[in-house]
Amino acid sequence: MYVLVTYDVETMTSNGQRRLRQVARQCLNYGQRVQNSVFECSVSPAQFTELRLKLSDIIDHKKDSIRFYFLGNNYSKRVEYIGVVTSYNVEDELII
Amino acid sequence: MYVLVTYDVETMTSNGQRRLRQVARQCLNYGQRVQNSVFECSVSPAQFTELRLKLSDIIDHKKDSIRFYFLGNNYSKRVEYIGVVTSYNVEDELII
Repeated sequence: MYVLVTYDVETMTSNGQRRLRQVARQCLNYGQRVQNSVFECSVSPAQFTELRLKLSDIIDHKKDSIRFYFLGNNYSKRVEYIGVVTSYNVEDELII
Repeated sequence: MYVLVTYDVETMTSNGQRRLRQVARQCLNYGQRVQNSVFECSVSPAQFTELRLKLSDIIDHKKDSIRFYFLGNNYSKRVEYIGVVTSYNVEDELII
């Protein structure tokens, strides 16, 4: 199944920036980055549960936000885009 | 139908920041902001076409990226979230 992961992680502190990198790195283990804080993941239900648990352990639940959107199996019919298509390297300098 | 709008707009220049505010303002006309650059819109096909045209006119197609995800009508079953749930005021100071 396809799951879209979008997140807002507070980046005002070094802790927040560390959490941001960890969230991105975890998402990369399960899918591809399509925008700065948007990942598209093709996962089984078990893998999704695993990813969600890991992300839940990383974030500060009072400051950060992660949303999961279930796109079903018919992914290609569910997405359109305009503008540039970029892929990000999570090891790069943090773009704030 | 529910459409998720996610975007990455270059904010290194004042032009980019202006485009970012305009994109956010347009999305607010059609839906609600759920994360910094993520909007959930409940629109008719005609309204979606209108929104897409307006956003296409605003962005720099070589620098900015906008993605549309079609969540169908059964929205509530398609989304989960962890962490904080925030709503943003597009008139506020730009959070970079």
